[in-house]
Amino acid sequence: MQPTARLTQLHQLPSGVRELLSRDTIRACARSSPSLISHAAAGPCYRQHVGASSQQKRLLTISQLDSGRDNRERVLILGSGWAGYTVARELDSKKYQAVVVSPRSYFAFTPLLASTSVGTLEFRTALEPVRTRRTNVSFFQGWADGVDFKNKVVTIEEAVDDPTATHALTDDRHAGETKEERKEEKKVEAKKGKLFDLTYDKLIITVGCYSQTFGTPGVKEHSLFLKDVGDARKIRSRLLACFEAAALPTTPEERRRQLLNFAVVGGGPTGIEFSAELHDLIHEDLARLYPELIPYHKITVYDVAAKVLPMFDEKLAKYAMDTFKREGISIKTQHHVQELRPGAPGEKGDEGGARRDHMVYTLKVKEEGEMGVGMVVWSTGLMQNPFVAKALGSVYELPSSFKRLEAGEGKGNPDNLLWKIKKDQKTGSVITDSRLRVKLVGEKDGDQKPEAILKDVFALGDCAIVEGTSYPATAQVASQKAYWLSKRLNKGDIEKAGFTWKNMGVMAYIGNWKALFQGGEGGNISGRLAWLIWRGAYLTKSVSWRNKILIPTYWLINWLFGRDTSRF
Amino acid sequence: MQPTARLTQLHQLPSGVRELLSRDTIRACARSSPSLISHAAAGPCYRQHVGASSQQKRLLTISQLDSGRDNRERVLILGSGWAGYTVARELDSKKYQAVVVSPRSYFAFTPLLASTSVGTLEFRTALEPVRTRRTNVSFFQGWADGVDFKNKVVTIEEAVDDPTATHALTDDRHAGETKEERKEEKKVEAKKGKLFDLTYDKLIITVGCYSQTFGTPGVKEHSLFLKDVGDARKIRSRLLACFEAAALPTTPEERRRQLLNFAVVGGGPTGIEFSAELHDLIHEDLARLYPELIPYHKITVYDVAAKVLPMFDEKLAKYAMDTFKREGISIKTQHHVQELRPGAPGEKGDEGGARRDHMVYTLKVKEEGEMGVGMVVWSTGLMQNPFVAKALGSVYELPSSFKRLEAGEGKGNPDNLLWKIKKDQKTGSVITDSRLRVKLVGEKDGDQKPEAILKDVFALGDCAIVEGTSYPATAQVASQKAYWLSKRLNKGDIEKAGFTWKNMGVMAYIGNWKALFQGGEGGNISGRLAWLIWRGAYLTKSVSWRNKILIPTYWLINWLFGRDTSRF
Repeated sequence: MQPTARLTQLHQLPSGVRELLSRDTIRACARSSPSLISHAAAGPCYRQHVGASSQQKRLLTISQLDSGRDNRERVLILGSGWAGYTVARELDSKKYQAVVVSPRSYFAFTPLLASTSVGTLEFRTALEPVRTRRTNVSFFQGWADGVDFKNKVVTIEEAVDDPTATHALTDDRHAGETKEERKEEKKVEAKKGKLFDLTYDKLIITVGCYSQTFGTPGVKEHSLFLKDVGDARKIRSRLLACFEAAALPTTPEERRRQLLNFAVVGGGPTGIEFSAELHDLIHEDLARLYPELIPYHKITVYDVAAKVLPMFDEKLAKYAMDTFKREGISIKTQHHVQELRPGAPGEKGDEGGARRDHMVYTLKVKEEGEMGVGMVVWSTGLMQNPFVAKALGSVYELPSSFKRLEAGEGKGNPDNLLWKIKKDQKTGSVITDSRLRVKLVGEKDGDQKPEAILKDVFALGDCAIVEGTSYPATAQVASQKAYWLSKRLNKGDIEKAGFTWKNMGVMAYIGNWKALFQGGEGGNISGRLAWLIWRGAYLTKSVSWRNKILIPTYWLINWLFGRDTSRF
Repeated sequence: MQPTARLTQLHQLPSGVRELLSRDTIRACARSSPSLISHAAAGPCYRQHVGASSQQKRLLTISQLDSGRDNRERVLILGSGWAGYTVARELDSKKYQAVVVSPRSYFAFTPLLASTSVGTLEFRTALEPVRTRRTNVSFFQGWADGVDFKNKVVTIEEAVDDPTATHALTDDRHAGETKEERKEEKKVEAKKGKLFDLTYDKLIITVGCYSQTFGTPGVKEHSLFLKDVGDARKIRSRLLACFEAAALPTTPEERRRQLLNFAVVGGGPTGIEFSAELHDLIHEDLARLYPELIPYHKITVYDVAAKVLPMFDEKLAKYAMDTFKREGISIKTQHHVQELRPGAPGEKGDEGGARRDHMVYTLKVKEEGEMGVGMVVWSTGLMQNPFVAKALGSVYELPSSFKRLEAGEGKGNPDNLLWKIKKDQKTGSVITDSRLRVKLVGEKDGDQKPEAILKDVFALGDCAIVEGTSYPATAQVASQKAYWLSKRLNKGDIEKAGFTWKNMGVMAYIGNWKALFQGGEGGNISGRLAWLIWRGAYLTKSVSWRNKILIPTYWLINWLFGRDTSRF
């Protein structure tokens, strides 16, 4: 179907709809494949998966999005983490219409989550809502479900009421469904208005990663994570409940010891900082509220590796381990967690029933056997986002943003090849060029496969790596990429020079007002001074003035009066 | 069994237990009936409902409670609301050992809950944990389940993991069970360590009330309340979800109107203040974030009475109604809500399934028929606490604190009568004398029934009324009673003069920085000045320094930057 045919069809639309169709949106829609056009009456830049009868009514928000777009390009950003949220804020709203699609309505300032999980800070001091007074960013709360690169359309599954979205993700939310089942389900969702499409001019993929559990039985179900604010809230509630339950007169001594046995799996910065914050909470606050229970508590960090904090040099890691030792936190390296199940060792776990009263769990460690624990916090790294595996696969029809790169051989018609998105073999991450553009690789026999890029599709954050680099999957890299990309897009000079990461150093809080700081170009600091740097850096980095005021207020108040231990 | 026999038995106890038994606790236990003594080996002042084998282990917390008691009387306080929390804090810890038993681990400063439900204040600014560094109050998280007045023992059902405890209560948690079923269940709970007993020297009953729904179908299940912090959190999350859902491109115009139709049932101060806060949130904040949605929203207050705010005089109530009218909030008096069910009018409600996606509800109002609403906040007053009806019934054996009052006739042996706790016929509240002591009435034919009091059992707060008075069921009355009682107990002069309530006036926030203030002895103020009084009063009344600092900080920050709208 040609653009002119599309234009003719428009006369059949209600007048209100016609008025909203600007030249740009018509151009955008005209790119649609014939199969899409039949649905396109629902609106210029989004296709509704339902019948045409009720569609006029549903235009409001998207049509305003379209009319508010003027001559700007629409940049659709998938995700609201360090990469996506930063790009959305930094893009020049005179040039681009930024639209964020994310299952979470906020950005989580992840380095402060450990502090919020014990009440050193209040949860909201680590959050910034995507919709704010000060920016012009549009937002839809949903999961990206599929991408049509040819027609520049993303299918979105709404997530307004999805309770999983504010927690660490460990499973594809459609796991266990076959392709056919999901297809059927999609039809139902579309009918219910749970699925909709959004066109883009530029697509920025920042969907992040899921939490890795290595398939360890029971971990997904029973351990707590520390990747989002919902996790932090669960931890805060659970650990106070463990103390309250241990303080019941009916709690036997052995059960008391189990309830207050806290296991942290993973000796990276998250696991170490959480252990340190937990130690502070217990010794600074709970020791005054439950003095008789303190002898029962225990904090243990498990890691399969030979040392914790692998990103720090030997000396700093040793300082951390010595500090933990003095503070009474055990670090058990080269230990393998094998299972986590509800109920104490030797108990049936299912006796609890509806009122979740199997108050303790059994943790099975290869080197130690089974033990009762009150809580396991799991932080062993990242798993690739199922969206990357499922939705970012083959590119069946080439979009106009396709650009064949020089390849020794195979200079034939690219349409004769099936192009796939290039992925890192080990992590499954999307591979980009140094301009953060998604790379394609042609399916062809022989050693040297032809390569291409999608000029208008970018990937950054934990789900992507720049080809030939090994930048870590950290907030720092994601944030630097985001600043770089938005600057290039704002200036329109993406070809000028590629992205390079500047290592600004690593930090970790290790409890008792001490921290580690390892500068990007050497220079190690540990102890109280590093702690001041830690606090200063995160206060500086925190986004809004609201939080720049609230964070030190809470630091001061909790230092003066202790952390709040109300549990609700 | 005599005290001496009890003392002999003690030699069979493990040595650690013996040491902990002070003279006082032995005296307290010696009052126990024979049926109790067989279990009493579990500890001096608590009976464990399980076998004797594992009991030594379980002593820790209670035994410490007992040993820390010294020569003080134990005052057991049931509840942590305005009455209970205040008494616990005010009692002289040199004279009394205060032990609070409550299903909530905190005190909720209820007048600020409406502010927290829209984010004007953060939730925790309206909370004070019962366990604090600054007081010596002991605490067990549980529901009072029964009282043995004769032996001065309260049976407690632990509530550490009870998710209902932080929300408004509408139903007896054992509703639907027969007496026999509950009895069986209790045996299981006792075995699991979920049930335990605690002795007292003085008992203070401040269990409060449940929320009244008048049996209106669907209200308990689907409406939101505003009686505790869990309710406030649900409301904040729900109303932001309504806006986010309305902003989805797939949401039809009619559904958008339903989602943003907010109904408040009950025109008392809670309903009016919540409506005002909701109006502020929408007009001060959401109007900037969802400008296109504002025309769709609607706030309506329903009340069966002819006027709202019945405790205010005509002029102030009219001022409130005029202000609401200008602000666009409808007040519909003499309207009767008949039903609330999930799903829009004409829809089946159960189509949602697990992902709670029946996003709207149908509210049926007698005078208006059915309408779709996004949220109903229910605040129509109080229902008597089932504990008062069930546990506070007859007194089968008279305790030593029994004191027969002068009654015209019936001077016979009181033991020949069945004594019942005197209740208010209309509300079912416990009736106390002017010293807040629980009154008994003897079951006897004839007009003039003999009366008595329990000298060591007090009742205050919403579950009790002083005989012959009609003090309202407010925080003010509860708090004044609590201060009066703790003062009398501290001074030991309970007989000196009875309690009288001093009306300090009533206040209500009505939105847009305006309030009503009606002084106790006349003197009405409305508008901005009343609003200043409102804020000043609650800031002064708030308990901890933490909250005295945080509350104005949030007021300032939200005025400067807007309320936080992150939803998790």
